[in-house]
Amino acid sequence: MSHLTELFKYVDDHQDLYVQEIPLPPIILGQLGSDPAKKTVCIYGHLDVQPANIDDGWDTEPFTLVEKDGKLYGRGSTDDKGPVLAWFNCIEAYQKIGKDLPINIKFCFEGMEESGSEGLDDLVFSRKDTFFKDVDYVCISDNYWLGKNKPCITYGLRGICYFFIEVECGGKDLHSGVFGGSVHEAMTDLIALMGNYLPLFKVIDHLQKKFAELGSPNKLKVNMGHGAKAWVSDFNHPHYMAGRKAMKTVFGVEPDLTREGGSIPVTLTFQEATGRNVMLLPVGSSDDGAHSQNEKINRSNYIQGVKLLGAYFHEVSLLE
Amino acid sequence: MSHLTELFKYVDDHQDLYVQEIPLPPIILGQLGSDPAKKTVCIYGHLDVQPANIDDGWDTEPFTLVEKDGKLYGRGSTDDKGPVLAWFNCIEAYQKIGKDLPINIKFCFEGMEESGSEGLDDLVFSRKDTFFKDVDYVCISDNYWLGKNKPCITYGLRGICYFFIEVECGGKDLHSGVFGGSVHEAMTDLIALMGNYLPLFKVIDHLQKKFAELGSPNKLKVNMGHGAKAWVSDFNHPHYMAGRKAMKTVFGVEPDLTREGGSIPVTLTFQEATGRNVMLLPVGSSDDGAHSQNEKINRSNYIQGVKLLGAYFHEVSLLE
Repeated sequence: MSHLTELFKYVDDHQDLYVQEIPLPPIILGQLGSDPAKKTVCIYGHLDVQPANIDDGWDTEPFTLVEKDGKLYGRGSTDDKGPVLAWFNCIEAYQKIGKDLPINIKFCFEGMEESGSEGLDDLVFSRKDTFFKDVDYVCISDNYWLGKNKPCITYGLRGICYFFIEVECGGKDLHSGVFGGSVHEAMTDLIALMGNYLPLFKVIDHLQKKFAELGSPNKLKVNMGHGAKAWVSDFNHPHYMAGRKAMKTVFGVEPDLTREGGSIPVTLTFQEATGRNVMLLPVGSSDDGAHSQNEKINRSNYIQGVKLLGAYFHEVSLLE
Repeated sequence: MSHLTELFKYVDDHQDLYVQEIPLPPIILGQLGSDPAKKTVCIYGHLDVQPANIDDGWDTEPFTLVEKDGKLYGRGSTDDKGPVLAWFNCIEAYQKIGKDLPINIKFCFEGMEESGSEGLDDLVFSRKDTFFKDVDYVCISDNYWLGKNKPCITYGLRGICYFFIEVECGGKDLHSGVFGGSVHEAMTDLIALMGNYLPLFKVIDHLQKKFAELGSPNKLKVNMGHGAKAWVSDFNHPHYMAGRKAMKTVFGVEPDLTREGGSIPVTLTFQEATGRNVMLLPVGSSDDGAHSQNEKINRSNYIQGVKLLGAYFHEVSLLE
């Protein structure tokens, strides 16, 4: 037993190794080219994904890319590892044909997007006068077409607003036979609050007022968990015209011009930090199933997408 | 690898060992005494308990009886292992003082009470003309005093009615940015249904009608999970008078006469199957915390309770 004394002392002495705050995953900043005669495009993407397990209802292992009927199945195939890879495949294709990239690129890839991009805003704002200073345009490929056949460019986002409502009743379990019907049950208060139409503003004030009207002795806690402002841009901006022309070149049609519900809060972050135009240039199709079981990206979307990014580089290089 | 072939064959051949319906736990029927000159009392109790884990917030191990300040802490101390044991301690005390029991006893102890007494009704009704045929009175000790100091006898129960409401929306996970606001969310329907006042009768019809009014494309499933009818008896019945006198003998006061919220559906089962008077004779105090953390029974309630059961046997033996 004597070794246990030593073992326990070691564990006590090194407890900070076990109980500690974990650092956020790194954000990758990279640069390709610095020709002052060329435009500089900042490309954002994210490398983290939603959780996935075959038991959730996937037909194949979520973390093994599987092609079936022209569809590439796997977690992150469309959100957002696939589109990130498409940028690299496009750069590689330029290299293979022995042609210089017509633009400079600044990459910003993070690993916390599915968890509210924690830490990203701080980094982008803190480097707005250094790394991000000479950026001319920002381009993000992290959303989806409106349908399955026609591409789109996205110039608006709805934003997002999460609230958490918590009602606390007893401090311990209560027997329904003894207390049921005589205590104010937390669930009843919660249903009453959640059955309300919420105003656009002052949500917390509104819920506290409604709760007070219930006359309940329970305790209410409301807080906003996570939010992102709405965003809209101008689809006739030269940067957008470059994107639209690139779409026309690859797909032969003028793209849909959309606003959508995904929050992508970094869009506004980049716009505010760089003061430059930001465009959302999706590669995936509406039925890709981001965040869902059997997430996929179509082989055709991917291959045409790589071409699209090349055409986009070209069109940007022609801008004034 | 060749042993695997053999192993797999064994598993295949014996699959019924692993995948099978588990039998219900036994119901214990017992008899003490069969003197035709004595009254026969049927005693019901249950040996199963609610789940309990020290991590739920118990101060001591829930399955180790711990006495502190005159209180006996442990899961089942008051619901219902303690009261069951009190019957036995009372019988033992009769034996220790060398006195014959003044009545015959038929025991019925089950192990599924906390799970809706599954199987008990079938057994009791199937033996109503055999084992339960010559029962004169039924007595159950499975509830609590109204307060902490004055005992009670219970002659009414509220009954219980559980409903399960299920609303089915998508067959897979949907991205809030793509689908949020454009699909009918199941949670919204559920809140709307749960925010309604329910009628006393035809609950399922009512919920289906309300759901239809919502015009939702989702699927609704409502079913009643578990129910028990309300029950009321006559507290001036000779059997109750015997109980009330026993209370007076031990506690020196006329007990409260209560109706309560616990469902105890077997009460009605025994009344209907035997056609005899059923009485609820509680031992525990209102603050015992059945189903809760730190469930306890007071030492004084337990000791006085054992005496009470003896006094009850005596009073019953005097009945016509």
